[in-house]
Amino acid sequence: MHVLITGAAGMIGRKLTERLVRDGGLNGKPIDKLTLIDVAAPAAPVARGIRVTTAAADIAEPAETAKHVATRPDVIFHLASVVSGEAELDFNKGYRTNLLGMMGLLEAIRRVGDGYHPKVVFTSSIAVFGAPFPPSIPDDFHLTPLTSYGAQKAMCELLLADYARKGFLDGIGIRLPTICVRPGRPNKAASGFFSSIIREPLNGEEAELPVSESVRHTHASPRSAVGFLIHAAGLTREQVGPRICLTMPGTSCTVGEQIEALRRLAGEKVAARIRRKPDPLIQRMVDGWPQRLDASRARALGFKAEESFEEIIRAHIEDELGGRFAA
Amino acid sequence: MHVLITGAAGMIGRKLTERLVRDGGLNGKPIDKLTLIDVAAPAAPVARGIRVTTAAADIAEPAETAKHVATRPDVIFHLASVVSGEAELDFNKGYRTNLLGMMGLLEAIRRVGDGYHPKVVFTSSIAVFGAPFPPSIPDDFHLTPLTSYGAQKAMCELLLADYARKGFLDGIGIRLPTICVRPGRPNKAASGFFSSIIREPLNGEEAELPVSESVRHTHASPRSAVGFLIHAAGLTREQVGPRICLTMPGTSCTVGEQIEALRRLAGEKVAARIRRKPDPLIQRMVDGWPQRLDASRARALGFKAEESFEEIIRAHIEDELGGRFAA
Repeated sequence: MHVLITGAAGMIGRKLTERLVRDGGLNGKPIDKLTLIDVAAPAAPVARGIRVTTAAADIAEPAETAKHVATRPDVIFHLASVVSGEAELDFNKGYRTNLLGMMGLLEAIRRVGDGYHPKVVFTSSIAVFGAPFPPSIPDDFHLTPLTSYGAQKAMCELLLADYARKGFLDGIGIRLPTICVRPGRPNKAASGFFSSIIREPLNGEEAELPVSESVRHTHASPRSAVGFLIHAAGLTREQVGPRICLTMPGTSCTVGEQIEALRRLAGEKVAARIRRKPDPLIQRMVDGWPQRLDASRARALGFKAEESFEEIIRAHIEDELGGRFAA
Repeated sequence: MHVLITGAAGMIGRKLTERLVRDGGLNGKPIDKLTLIDVAAPAAPVARGIRVTTAAADIAEPAETAKHVATRPDVIFHLASVVSGEAELDFNKGYRTNLLGMMGLLEAIRRVGDGYHPKVVFTSSIAVFGAPFPPSIPDDFHLTPLTSYGAQKAMCELLLADYARKGFLDGIGIRLPTICVRPGRPNKAASGFFSSIIREPLNGEEAELPVSESVRHTHASPRSAVGFLIHAAGLTREQVGPRICLTMPGTSCTVGEQIEALRRLAGEKVAARIRRKPDPLIQRMVDGWPQRLDASRARALGFKAEESFEEIIRAHIEDELGGRFAA
């Protein structure tokens, strides 16, 4: 089994790589080859028995993508993406990476021909949906993104579905809720504060909250996100059916409830490290985002996420902080 | 007022040109310049007082499109498109013309800069919707196209909405129902038979019916289609609101009802010129198409279509046959 990961140097990409190396296999088959690409070459993991190739490749350059697709990976995790805040600020870059990148990847697959028919697992986003919303958003809610990032992800979903329908590949698009708590430093995602307000205080640092505490949103941990990807790769075409893009499950809570969970788990002193600093641009973007998602199709297909925000904080403390935090 | 029409040599493009030349203006302003482009140069109309430019331009070549956009037309009717049957058979050509063509046009507009902010009227299609359907399809039904053509049109809608949201242009996408009765020779649209079974018999010729008489579909005349385009160009941003892609009204009827209307209007002998010749590919495509559309938003905005299929046949006899047919 040969697995290719695009965007492998990103947070989810690194965690997926770790998990695949640890498991040593995917879909019940041993992994003998792992190709990791990103705009800068990802670090090669120590992986006994797996031939690892790491390479710098700009996903928006069709020839660079095609070179790696030509090695005929069985499963492709397409994670490479410019995040929401950056795609909104840099219109060109967002379309180049997110839309042209997907087009290049899919065309590269189609052009291999000769019976090549990989499984493509694409990370979409709940940003494909835009307000006004019903109380809980079903999988078949119409696509009316209110950001360029959401528009790009929605177009990628349509592309993936059409290439799958035409029989060029076996595809599944998983709409990730906001991944929280993201480890490491803040990125340019407009959703970054959802993680910062937990991560920084646990690390003894102050964090800025740019939106109101009444903001409701849906979250899943990085651990769950990797679980979604692995699970998606193992579903058959028959299980998924013709509508291949699915909203993933998550925990819906308000920012106030996030802070309350942090206070309960880590204490008042930690929670007090959150400073209110309203940012109208972020508030406006977030106001257009989904609050609750009906992921019943995904749940029925066996996708699993945390049941509470406390569980999400605990996953972060376990996976990233070795069980300790700055009280 | 300077008007640019892409796909101006196509059926709708020619009729729109005729109408604009006849009206001499658009949105209450006189037209002084008309630029008509298509893959082969369109015929120049006789148009007193209007400076007409006709040119061959491949919409999928960004430089060719950009040249015409650089002349800063106030209103752009983007009609250039590969039809559904052709987009399904020629995957490359469909994506090139329908998706890359739109991307090139929108980028050309954005790159003019300097306050340039045209009105873009884009002809989308009800093929953005795919079965299974509710009894009547609302504007906010989710986009699950079942053809490459439908996928391309849905992506174009998302692009147009994002460029409009970002303030690069003022856009409106009108989802045309099947245009019937198309004059002239059959094209490669899978929906072509809806017109052939009326047009050929009225012309004394036999026509082939590739699907069952129980197939229900929604139609509007070419005259109505031109009316939609003109009306769309005149709506303000405030009137349309943030959801700029709208399903146009039409007449919903079965193929059997179409034939019955022909029989009532033109007689048994004319209706008897329809030969049944089932085509499983066309039947399968048509089975995935909408049957009834709830175009209440468009109707509320003043878009008008025929109320019965007999009215559609009468429009054809008046506009194309000079009021006469082969009894």
